[in-house]
Amino acid sequence: MAKKTKQSRNSTVNALEDLGKNILSQIKKGKNPEIAIPIRALSNIEFDEKSKMVSLGNKVSARYFFHIAHAKKFLQTVEVAAVSHNLLREDKHASLRDVFYMIKRTIPGTKANIVDEQSESDSVIEDLELITDHSREQLNINANKNGSVAGKVIIEDKGDTIDWSKLGSGGWSIPSNVEEIKFKKVTAQYVLYMEKAAVWERLHEDKFWEKQKCIIMSSQGQTTRGIRRLLQRLSSEYKLPIYVLCDNDPWGAYIYSVIKYGSINLAHISGKMAIPSVRYLGITCDDIEKYKLEKHGIKLKDTDLARIKQISEYTWFKDNKAWQKQFKMMKQSKIKLEIQALSSRGISFISNVYLPEKIKNKEFID
Amino acid sequence: MAKKTKQSRNSTVNALEDLGKNILSQIKKGKNPEIAIPIRALSNIEFDEKSKMVSLGNKVSARYFFHIAHAKKFLQTVEVAAVSHNLLREDKHASLRDVFYMIKRTIPGTKANIVDEQSESDSVIEDLELITDHSREQLNINANKNGSVAGKVIIEDKGDTIDWSKLGSGGWSIPSNVEEIKFKKVTAQYVLYMEKAAVWERLHEDKFWEKQKCIIMSSQGQTTRGIRRLLQRLSSEYKLPIYVLCDNDPWGAYIYSVIKYGSINLAHISGKMAIPSVRYLGITCDDIEKYKLEKHGIKLKDTDLARIKQISEYTWFKDNKAWQKQFKMMKQSKIKLEIQALSSRGISFISNVYLPEKIKNKEFID
Repeated sequence: MAKKTKQSRNSTVNALEDLGKNILSQIKKGKNPEIAIPIRALSNIEFDEKSKMVSLGNKVSARYFFHIAHAKKFLQTVEVAAVSHNLLREDKHASLRDVFYMIKRTIPGTKANIVDEQSESDSVIEDLELITDHSREQLNINANKNGSVAGKVIIEDKGDTIDWSKLGSGGWSIPSNVEEIKFKKVTAQYVLYMEKAAVWERLHEDKFWEKQKCIIMSSQGQTTRGIRRLLQRLSSEYKLPIYVLCDNDPWGAYIYSVIKYGSINLAHISGKMAIPSVRYLGITCDDIEKYKLEKHGIKLKDTDLARIKQISEYTWFKDNKAWQKQFKMMKQSKIKLEIQALSSRGISFISNVYLPEKIKNKEFID
Repeated sequence: MAKKTKQSRNSTVNALEDLGKNILSQIKKGKNPEIAIPIRALSNIEFDEKSKMVSLGNKVSARYFFHIAHAKKFLQTVEVAAVSHNLLREDKHASLRDVFYMIKRTIPGTKANIVDEQSESDSVIEDLELITDHSREQLNINANKNGSVAGKVIIEDKGDTIDWSKLGSGGWSIPSNVEEIKFKKVTAQYVLYMEKAAVWERLHEDKFWEKQKCIIMSSQGQTTRGIRRLLQRLSSEYKLPIYVLCDNDPWGAYIYSVIKYGSINLAHISGKMAIPSVRYLGITCDDIEKYKLEKHGIKLKDTDLARIKQISEYTWFKDNKAWQKQFKMMKQSKIKLEIQALSSRGISFISNVYLPEKIKNKEFID
């Protein structure tokens, strides 16, 4: 793995140096230096029916150095590339915010700053992912850290051997960057990802992962890039099925769809992030009746209803009969159901009845 | 520890049973049953100069069963007490949301629900902390989980031995409830708590805790109750100094003040949560000049300025000269400085220069 890691690092360093060499060679030839960047806009986003991923189309734009509208972005791109190159050589990682501060300074002889807002450096980092064909994680630039994991897995990370089944009530805290983790032993048979940390603690206390030979993983709200990459690695390297457990509302459906298909603003790296084989376990509209939970539903607000309409029209949901049925049921019942509503049937109903039943009967929505 | 844990559980069970017995005995005597509850309102909050904590005054109100304005709350109180009693007997924990769903049902023969909103059960849980003189954690009702820790400590938790110095890049994920953790070996000399997970990852990658023989701990934003209790236990059981690292803005000052003095809405359990010995390490207004970071400041907004005014008038800051000086400097410079602004001086400037210097020179604000 150390070897693989080094190879991966070299590959990123080479991609960055290629960018630099290319610019230098253009300068030597007396050309106006340009960088070719695939366009990241809705107009260039496609849903690939074959790979089942949101992905970028073929439209490319050129960024010129001698161009009044391009010069600043050109400079920012080269600056961020230099920061990433340094990070890789020093074997260190920076957050998005760090990178912003590292390139923020006044251009000598002018009153202009290289960047004024973090959104500028963030956008250039996404460009750089495309230019170099290496993800932000490979550029040693990290997203935010969040989430916990427990289960039948032993990993090696930074020289430490970590057994995810022996970490007390807390579990392992998932780092922002999981590229260099080595899986030593994976005896789990599937992964259950849930959107709520409180539900994770419920399942963990009930030793759900031990009884079910699985892995339980959660963040709080948004699924971080670290978690999405960890799920993808377990799916692709160990062929583990990934099941997603969310609230029965449009926001839950969206969390699932981002993990499965990728997201619009990260369409350029769907290949590294999306997991088309992911399955939605619950909570579903059918559960409400089946488990007699009608009284525990929460009335949908206008914003929820608007969001259902929006999501139901997404390319990847539009022709999906199972999901269209769900959206229709939500609109008709006008209620949503949280995972924790299952607690009304008993604190461990979720661990002892709901999840084992659904998994055994393969009641998933794809 | 197992013994201590059992003792603590018994003590909570007894307190809940005392409440039940007391109500029963009133009924048997033909009285209108009442529960005495200390008043949790600003009018009953004091800042105790001796203990340096925000605490509740002596005002108490009675909640009657036969009283049109009290009956529902009386019932809710007894219901939550029963839920907690069951949790303790089954040795299980529930989240605030779980408790809400566990007591939410229609009162037979009526159209009224025991609770309609989670805010009702939350409020009753806080009452129950006061009535029983046991914290929510002791009642087996958990807050949200968040945050990571790494450093020179070995703990035992749920039968697992966990070495906080051997957990790779992720660290230990801090659970919502740390009451039953047993410290096996604490060789750290202090704890550094920071408000940002990205800064924690920076220090962790630089092996800061190893070089400095310390513990690094963070959440993201709000400090969870689990973290506050963990800090308090390390402070009281091992006399470890606790240093707080926040952004130089009114929100950072507030995060510090909550850890140190307690918060207004949890004043009734300050004794279990506040840590009067905590010291503020940075970022301070003085750092801005000292480390030449003026250009990396962010202009304060009107909401920031209003918050500075509000915070500077809090009882515990009002007569504190060092903090008043900070607030004055913020108002004059009209800028705030984030922790990550230190990255402009180099990615590891924080680990190699800033923190070691400040700690060595004891540059704290109390």
